[in-house]
Amino acid sequence: MSKSVFRAFAPILLLVSCQSGPTRTEKDVNPINPENLMIRIAEIEVDSAHLEEYLEILREEAAASIEREPGVISIFPMYEAEAPTMVRLVEIYADSAAYQAHLKTPHFLKYKNGTQHMVKSLRLVDMRSIDPESMQALFRKL
Amino acid sequence: MSKSVFRAFAPILLLVSCQSGPTRTEKDVNPINPENLMIRIAEIEVDSAHLEEYLEILREEAAASIEREPGVISIFPMYEAEAPTMVRLVEIYADSAAYQAHLKTPHFLKYKNGTQHMVKSLRLVDMRSIDPESMQALFRKL
Repeated sequence: MSKSVFRAFAPILLLVSCQSGPTRTEKDVNPINPENLMIRIAEIEVDSAHLEEYLEILREEAAASIEREPGVISIFPMYEAEAPTMVRLVEIYADSAAYQAHLKTPHFLKYKNGTQHMVKSLRLVDMRSIDPESMQALFRKL
Repeated sequence: MSKSVFRAFAPILLLVSCQSGPTRTEKDVNPINPENLMIRIAEIEVDSAHLEEYLEILREEAAASIEREPGVISIFPMYEAEAPTMVRLVEIYADSAAYQAHLKTPHFLKYKNGTQHMVKSLRLVDMRSIDPESMQALFRKL
């Protein structure tokens, strides 16, 4: 590329390259106020006879929630390595309104109604971040 | 700024602006292999007489670990809203070697030795992500 052609295209390259960060636009549009965050750990024991099916439905629900709901900051589902029927979800919502809206979405209702008979116990534990201001840094490497 | 001056500076602007994403360089240098991730929930009960002091030391330790150790992907410390002495940490390491290295760092040893008498109980639970390939998406809004 000749020097003059590069100079002519450089401003365009600048714009294109700097929009490649996946969250830049979303963050700008929906700034998160750490004070309003709703954080929860859901402790779920799943019937072992339905474990695979349950995990598949949960996987879909978590992905759909993050994809479609700006107010769902994270749903991070895990299970215990030594006891795979013991599922833990870290859920982070922008605020309680975002959580209430989440409960009414088709993908949440599909999960809730579709897995009710697979769940042996459920405990929802409200959590607080020890360092809300730094939460962004906590996951920046992912 | 005149058009010609902008053209002359644009390549420099391009370089400067595109290095502003906090993790770009780090990610490129240390790509995360989801298969090797070590994920854990630490369940800690803290003596209420030392709670504030404990949280301050933990806050420092989490920040230092993320700042100084490329292999520490996340240390996310929370406590139960209704029982603040019940602390939960979600810890994510790049692999078990990164975790072993973490145990030898001055900031971890300072935390461990400095808080031992404040901890009433500790349970370390190895976890698996239900959807390792999508973990990046799970926290992209933070």
